[in-house]
Amino acid sequence: MRPTHLTPLTPLAFLERAAGAFADKVGVVDGDTEIAYGEFAAEATRLARALQASGIRPGDRVAYLCPNVPELLLAHFAVPLAGGVLVAINTRLAGEEVRYICDHSGARLLVVDAELAATVAPVAAALQTVEDVVLTGDADLAATAYDELLDRGSDAPLAFAVDDEDATIAINYTSGTTGRPKGVEYTHRGAYLNALAEVVHSRHSADSVYLWTLPMFHCNGWCTPWGVTAVGGTHVCLRAVRPEVIWRLIDERGITHLNAAPTVLIGIANAAAAHRVERGLVVTTAGAPPSPTIIAQMTDLGARVVHVYGLTETYGPYTVSEEPVGATEAEPSQRARLLARQGVAMVSADPVRVVDDELRDVPRDGRTMGEVVMRGNNVMKGYFNDPDATAAAFRGGWFHSGDLGVWHPDGAVELRDRAKDIIISGGENISTIEVEQAIAQHPAVLECAVVGVPHETWGERPKAFVVLKDGHSPSAQELIGHVRGRLARFKAPDEVEFVTELPKTSTGKIQKFALRSRAAATPSG
Amino acid sequence: MRPTHLTPLTPLAFLERAAGAFADKVGVVDGDTEIAYGEFAAEATRLARALQASGIRPGDRVAYLCPNVPELLLAHFAVPLAGGVLVAINTRLAGEEVRYICDHSGARLLVVDAELAATVAPVAAALQTVEDVVLTGDADLAATAYDELLDRGSDAPLAFAVDDEDATIAINYTSGTTGRPKGVEYTHRGAYLNALAEVVHSRHSADSVYLWTLPMFHCNGWCTPWGVTAVGGTHVCLRAVRPEVIWRLIDERGITHLNAAPTVLIGIANAAAAHRVERGLVVTTAGAPPSPTIIAQMTDLGARVVHVYGLTETYGPYTVSEEPVGATEAEPSQRARLLARQGVAMVSADPVRVVDDELRDVPRDGRTMGEVVMRGNNVMKGYFNDPDATAAAFRGGWFHSGDLGVWHPDGAVELRDRAKDIIISGGENISTIEVEQAIAQHPAVLECAVVGVPHETWGERPKAFVVLKDGHSPSAQELIGHVRGRLARFKAPDEVEFVTELPKTSTGKIQKFALRSRAAATPSG
Repeated sequence: MRPTHLTPLTPLAFLERAAGAFADKVGVVDGDTEIAYGEFAAEATRLARALQASGIRPGDRVAYLCPNVPELLLAHFAVPLAGGVLVAINTRLAGEEVRYICDHSGARLLVVDAELAATVAPVAAALQTVEDVVLTGDADLAATAYDELLDRGSDAPLAFAVDDEDATIAINYTSGTTGRPKGVEYTHRGAYLNALAEVVHSRHSADSVYLWTLPMFHCNGWCTPWGVTAVGGTHVCLRAVRPEVIWRLIDERGITHLNAAPTVLIGIANAAAAHRVERGLVVTTAGAPPSPTIIAQMTDLGARVVHVYGLTETYGPYTVSEEPVGATEAEPSQRARLLARQGVAMVSADPVRVVDDELRDVPRDGRTMGEVVMRGNNVMKGYFNDPDATAAAFRGGWFHSGDLGVWHPDGAVELRDRAKDIIISGGENISTIEVEQAIAQHPAVLECAVVGVPHETWGERPKAFVVLKDGHSPSAQELIGHVRGRLARFKAPDEVEFVTELPKTSTGKIQKFALRSRAAATPSG
Repeated sequence: MRPTHLTPLTPLAFLERAAGAFADKVGVVDGDTEIAYGEFAAEATRLARALQASGIRPGDRVAYLCPNVPELLLAHFAVPLAGGVLVAINTRLAGEEVRYICDHSGARLLVVDAELAATVAPVAAALQTVEDVVLTGDADLAATAYDELLDRGSDAPLAFAVDDEDATIAINYTSGTTGRPKGVEYTHRGAYLNALAEVVHSRHSADSVYLWTLPMFHCNGWCTPWGVTAVGGTHVCLRAVRPEVIWRLIDERGITHLNAAPTVLIGIANAAAAHRVERGLVVTTAGAPPSPTIIAQMTDLGARVVHVYGLTETYGPYTVSEEPVGATEAEPSQRARLLARQGVAMVSADPVRVVDDELRDVPRDGRTMGEVVMRGNNVMKGYFNDPDATAAAFRGGWFHSGDLGVWHPDGAVELRDRAKDIIISGGENISTIEVEQAIAQHPAVLECAVVGVPHETWGERPKAFVVLKDGHSPSAQELIGHVRGRLARFKAPDEVEFVTELPKTSTGKIQKFALRSRAAATPSG
């Protein structure tokens, strides 16, 4: 028998707590629909019973292809409550990719939102392990209706508890730009601890009204389905991330918190409806290094910007950029520059390191580049059914992020590049992030990306792709001169191409491989 | 080898984090002395090395008898860093009690603050396991000087890590009013999780400036030494709890948070220097049920009152009184009445229950009384070297608090009494807490306590001991009438005795056993 003083950690306990402490409080909002926590927990039990009645056994995978709707939020509790493992699939993927993930994870059930039925329709018949496709809403797909699934359930209580906190609660497939996606395994313990860390660093409380701008399929929404529930905050669901809708909900629902990639923040800050939020707003951002420019803009709008950094392999956020000592007295641009660093390990994470090829710490000089490595409770258990990739990622006992950065004397880590994005020009490293941040400081620039293009003499040279703000038209030379005024001359791009938008992944990461192909295909000059 | 994704939970990691993220930030304040987190962590290593050099081996107990000084705060990290177990002793105990605790815990070292040397002097020679008494400052006690102890240390790094998260980090002796004190064992895992829960519920952040009004020897200061450090807040030490000093520090140091028993809050709220704190202040209170009156008073002063409840056996707080839905719109006295309930389990605790003698839930009707029971990560490992007491406390797999309460329909628990304090009058239970809260609503009353006195006809009848505010002199009849206007007539005390102060334990609990003896010795009439 387990000692009375040890309860295995699981985020399931958070919904049990919310149902006990906030039974009548609104836990979930979807348009005009409001669901109290007591009812939400009852729904989780009903769905978990329905999954069990559908044949889901402990450890079985249940896949979801849904935008940020209450059904997917519910799945974060109901699937593990049934003993299952949640596989939340990226909604922007093609049918063939969805099929691969379902097959690779061995999912026995796939729940599809009606608006994504067209993605699944062409591959539904080819799914190898899925026994049942369930459809929410009406669409042209031969499938079980969601209500039909629910009808298999019951209200017979299930324990919001697990026997083994190291058991897998979810598998999240990385949207790798090369190779097949890998399934990142999250444990109950890791999800519990990361959720609490999100609560601490984003300062969530029972007063939180959290807007679901960040996709729940992305690292389980950085564990926020569990964290906001733990403290009895309110989830506000959101199907599509459109700045005008976000501003309307900020005003109408009194949103206090949202998470979003910097590119989404750029849209929010530059929307026609943008205005100062006097009662405050916490904006937690990650997915790409935010430029000091967008940090300063959001701060001007009344937001507290919490900048975090991590990967799918680290449950989303692993580090947080803590407000540097004396930063409130620093001038705003200096403060924003400091906050744009990736920072230090979150409260539940082991210390982050920047290391050389032999896993030795690089000097904390803010200059020497190394790879960012992590380990401990905020790092995945491994890649599902892929021991070779797992061993490679964990070589030397540390998870290798593939991100290159420097270590500052004050302990903060700052990314310089993805290992594959770094530009090596005449033997010198050029951080594309550094160049991008210099360009973004130009008042005419909305967004930009820098990639390396092959060069006969130097090996590689930087090229910038720039989206301008409406009504601005600086020349390429003006932007190049702007960068030369801020960085070493060799870091300035040789070439600037003006574009109307940048290619991005569904989570807002700029697809540099696409820009590199494009640069290669467009002879310079 | 331990998997890369599992790091045993320990509060030691919190100081490592603070030293990494906030090396130059002030972590500890003591009068005019300010210690940065980098230096504080270095001191922890030095002291841990000194303890090891003094013969402390893994699992050895190290006792401290100190007020809230930096040395005791440091011990919360340095002792476990050395592999030891901290025994922080109540500073109000008599020498003989200190001796008992040192001997029972088998402490090998005892660190004594100079102002408490007189307590130890008479028993120092009788200590059976203590090999070394260390004295901070100058006093009349044959002992090793604290600096001499430190000189044995070194800066050779130690890992801020443990192999077993279920290992004991501290033993806290309960100041039981009957029998010998029992040693409550806290684990690294439990301390880690409770510390995070304190951070969440008291809303600590790197902006926290935390005033040490709560004794650190009491449940390790509710794990706050570890929690405030985890987020990089600042600790402000405090030797003696005096309202005028507290108000000076609130103003001069910009205190944002303090923890204190309701009796301390009464002193703070009624001090001459009391004034509204416009920038806000979080006051977390426990140790006795706060009256709605003091909650309303503190709220008027600009404080957010967080009411928590627990016991030494539950790492201090186990439940928190969450703001009820719609309470902000409720009238202030109604809101205060709801917040005065003990509430629901904290975020890291298993659900709290109120049960009958057979461990069955009592109805959630707000009327049926039962015993409050708990279990899980926020409950002690057991009583040190006392398997019988441990088995008795955990009978049926639940920790028995000995507190009687009711369960409200909204899930909140509300204490009615300690099992031994309840008054049974004519077969009816009378909650002394309920009667005290009614008396406290009278504008002339500063503080009061109600106990049962033997009565021929009814078995027992309530008697009130009342401390009046300066310049007030209501009659006993007036107060009795005041209670009759608020509660069932049979609950009103038959007798009121005006006193200048109430007997209290060092942690602010009113010693009802002393009042009962006094009532028995003073024939009524």
